[in-house]
Amino acid sequence: MLRTHRTSELGRVREGRRVKVAGWVSSVRDQGSITFLMLRDGWGEVQVTAKKGEVPDELLERLHAIPPHSSVVIVGTVRIDQRAPGGVEVIPSSVQLVSRAKKQPPFSVYGGNLPALDRRLDIRAVDLRRVKAGAIFRVRHATLRALRDFFTSRGLTEVQTPKIIATATEGGAELFPVLYFDREAFLAQSPQLYKEQLTMAFDGVFEIGPIFRAEPSRTLRHLSEAISVDVEMAFADYRDVMRLLEDMVVRVTKRLTSEIPEEFAALEHSPEVPSKPIQRFTYEQCLSMLREAGVEKDFGEDLETDDLRELGRMIGGYYFITDWPTKLKPFYIKPKARRPEVSESFDLMHGDLELSSGGSRIHRRSVLTRRLKEKGLKPRDFEYHLRVFDYGMPPHAGFGLGLDRFVMVLTGQDNIREVVAYPRDMRRLTP
Amino acid sequence: MLRTHRTSELGRVREGRRVKVAGWVSSVRDQGSITFLMLRDGWGEVQVTAKKGEVPDELLERLHAIPPHSSVVIVGTVRIDQRAPGGVEVIPSSVQLVSRAKKQPPFSVYGGNLPALDRRLDIRAVDLRRVKAGAIFRVRHATLRALRDFFTSRGLTEVQTPKIIATATEGGAELFPVLYFDREAFLAQSPQLYKEQLTMAFDGVFEIGPIFRAEPSRTLRHLSEAISVDVEMAFADYRDVMRLLEDMVVRVTKRLTSEIPEEFAALEHSPEVPSKPIQRFTYEQCLSMLREAGVEKDFGEDLETDDLRELGRMIGGYYFITDWPTKLKPFYIKPKARRPEVSESFDLMHGDLELSSGGSRIHRRSVLTRRLKEKGLKPRDFEYHLRVFDYGMPPHAGFGLGLDRFVMVLTGQDNIREVVAYPRDMRRLTP
Repeated sequence: MLRTHRTSELGRVREGRRVKVAGWVSSVRDQGSITFLMLRDGWGEVQVTAKKGEVPDELLERLHAIPPHSSVVIVGTVRIDQRAPGGVEVIPSSVQLVSRAKKQPPFSVYGGNLPALDRRLDIRAVDLRRVKAGAIFRVRHATLRALRDFFTSRGLTEVQTPKIIATATEGGAELFPVLYFDREAFLAQSPQLYKEQLTMAFDGVFEIGPIFRAEPSRTLRHLSEAISVDVEMAFADYRDVMRLLEDMVVRVTKRLTSEIPEEFAALEHSPEVPSKPIQRFTYEQCLSMLREAGVEKDFGEDLETDDLRELGRMIGGYYFITDWPTKLKPFYIKPKARRPEVSESFDLMHGDLELSSGGSRIHRRSVLTRRLKEKGLKPRDFEYHLRVFDYGMPPHAGFGLGLDRFVMVLTGQDNIREVVAYPRDMRRLTP
Repeated sequence: MLRTHRTSELGRVREGRRVKVAGWVSSVRDQGSITFLMLRDGWGEVQVTAKKGEVPDELLERLHAIPPHSSVVIVGTVRIDQRAPGGVEVIPSSVQLVSRAKKQPPFSVYGGNLPALDRRLDIRAVDLRRVKAGAIFRVRHATLRALRDFFTSRGLTEVQTPKIIATATEGGAELFPVLYFDREAFLAQSPQLYKEQLTMAFDGVFEIGPIFRAEPSRTLRHLSEAISVDVEMAFADYRDVMRLLEDMVVRVTKRLTSEIPEEFAALEHSPEVPSKPIQRFTYEQCLSMLREAGVEKDFGEDLETDDLRELGRMIGGYYFITDWPTKLKPFYIKPKARRPEVSESFDLMHGDLELSSGGSRIHRRSVLTRRLKEKGLKPRDFEYHLRVFDYGMPPHAGFGLGLDRFVMVLTGQDNIREVVAYPRDMRRLTP
């Protein structure tokens, strides 16, 4: 055993107990006759205090010579000292340098100025040793847990759908081609059609998994590989799934703020817990608001980055934009019965950031076939999908939520690359 | 609202209560003056009982005419009747046929003979309406939950690593090429190098996500897209992670058998709960056992399908094969210090099925570089990975477990395609 205790467990150990801790050295400080070494592991940190006279000179010298970032195993005894971080320190009796750091990164793990992002991403695993990076990824972990617990409590079944697919879901743009044995295939840009199909067997389903989009631009909020939180429910329409999404945001945020306040403290960020109902604006109300702000848009025009920035400024926080023009939405989105140029659809926004998109889906094969043709797609390419609609496909609705973007909002980050372990974009394919 | 209650909630409703249920019709039976309609939703089923004289003739005729698999919404009142499945039935006052089934699948959802697998997979979403298929996927859902809860309780952090990668992890065989903007990339066949790196920041990590292997053969236990359960821990060796894996199998199986006995009853299968420790045999002990069974193998030869079948027959259930020849393992597996032709490695088997593979990893850059060259790989191609080893990479160990194979064992299935929603192999890319 390379360790008897994690650093987070030392506060519960009796004074004088012999322990073996293991981790990496985040700093070594010399204060006259005392050397302080901070040892970090995956759960926290502990101060190792070596005082001349209290520990052998040879050990003091060895501790002093350890370069930061090295991995060490330290045996020692626990001493209660309120001045030490966490209230305990370890008085070392031996140290084993198991992996000496030969280089130092161009940043401090405790904060301060950071070099250009690319320099950090080049040694991403080292960059993730930063205290704030650790907090972001522990929030991410807790978010995943909270999301899955929430969906499970609502009776949804977790599913996993294929990432290698034969046909583009929403047309051919932004797809990565894959050579699949001797034929062309694509990486799934969404589990859309699969999750819709699965409502006929499992009623309510969710999937949290990767999606792939060949984004030709480089922005702070797009990646070519992202994690999508997908939900689809039978016998539901877009209003039902908006309520579910709203409950989800509120419940998850509340749970996180009460469960891991220390991570938000490390990030110096308190996530906004929205109150229900989250504000709803139709697309056409948004056009009116934009008009009042001096931006003229006709019905059917998409809301561009600048428009969303304007709306985000006017509304702030979380809000829905509903009832989008049918022509702006994919073929599977349901047009309204009484006004088919408008669809049963919504986006969930936070400020100017689109977090989620959803709607009621078409569940009649004939209507879906007509919509495919209107979008310039070939029904024959979707035969594998349309086929199951002949077996009593229920009405259904759902949404996709960008996990990375949601974690950006929760942790107060502006660049999506900060919340993804190894981001992928046009230019970056390593590490 | 298309439903007021799920079928699973009707047992807790007082008699006479008016309810609205929604789902699909699994059977319509006529017994003289009574029509029984079984309605299934994602959580169970309820009998809808329409008796001549008790419900209008017109409604009786409409119920009678509904083709199985159609989706319906039924309003009615709850009546307690111990003869009905679940002890309650619904006396209908209205029925809405929201999606009429135009076709019938070539199988019964309740069991009996099944047509060739391909015929079922062609309409997979309908196939998943079978009672046994539903049970398999609810076991799968519960397994995912139990795995994540177990890893979280052990302090591991959940991570998500990229699926599009620049370099083959273990050499170029069996990789799917991707056109990534203007260059060639690959689909990750494992998160191996990323999870190893992340131990330097997060100590212990796990990931449950897709892996991709261009398997050129078609077997009952290989797919070209699978879900892998990956674990990696700093300051641990292969014995530590074997113990973790052993605990995981025991804890997860126990939890499932107590949490969802009804699913195993539907499958007519009781999963084996192994007792600890799970038996361990070295590779060389396995060679001896095979020799006694008349199979001659030299040290360094791989154990083939037939050999594993023989071992599975001799040992049975769960067992480890440890200490494999170094040359049979990937470059990152650590050779034993005193006998470098043998490695600190293991496979977890169930019968003749390999469930998991793991070991201690090399954490010194110079050793890893030498091993890459010995395997005919170019260290330059792995520079993005080797680079972080200069910053105090801790000793670490881990394993990868095939989720689909584990679910096969838990649910007693022989074909991996039965436990995957939309399986992918050489021949099948749809649905």
